[in-house]
Amino acid sequence: MTKYPSLDGTFRALADPTRRSILQLVSTGPTSISDLARPFGIALPTVLEHVRILEKTRLLTTEKVGRVRECTLGPERLDEAWKWIETFRMWERRLDGLDRYIATRTGRHV
Amino acid sequence: MTKYPSLDGTFRALADPTRRSILQLVSTGPTSISDLARPFGIALPTVLEHVRILEKTRLLTTEKVGRVRECTLGPERLDEAWKWIETFRMWERRLDGLDRYIATRTGRHV
Repeated sequence: MTKYPSLDGTFRALADPTRRSILQLVSTGPTSISDLARPFGIALPTVLEHVRILEKTRLLTTEKVGRVRECTLGPERLDEAWKWIETFRMWERRLDGLDRYIATRTGRHV
Repeated sequence: MTKYPSLDGTFRALADPTRRSILQLVSTGPTSISDLARPFGIALPTVLEHVRILEKTRLLTTEKVGRVRECTLGPERLDEAWKWIETFRMWERRLDGLDRYIATRTGRHV
């Protein structure tokens, strides 16, 4: 039914504003779990839960550096999600164009 | 925390392969609920549930035409989701470029 099986996890991971903000923050450079908790004013276990979901979808990787667990962007990089949406929008635009072409040829409004 | 509150619903709606396929099918033109059920080989109530979720996020609209309920693409059109991912990827690329620039200036590998 779909060519992109990991898309389910990626889109589910993106469906939460805290997880999107975590990704944005981590994209600026390696970030510790406690540095992630601070700006959102949420408890560490909640941050850990979000990080675990992002890690599972490979959008984030974590590594123990000394006594701190550091997060960096994972290998997934939203390429697949971007590709799916972009393909959908391109297809949509083409069909809109086709509708307009048919309308001009037949003189009917769509 | 996010500028796009409706993104949660959009990404959640896209996190299911059947819903993505329904969107793709409906993007080719108005489609009845039973026409949606056929290619996926799933029960009508399941299709209705997916349609209801897509309708709630305004990715799909339904209209009763005679005795048939027809689906067309809604006003949401994935623009916001595309914009969020595109902005994220652009920001990521810029930071990658900055990393490379710093590496060439300082002679260190990143």
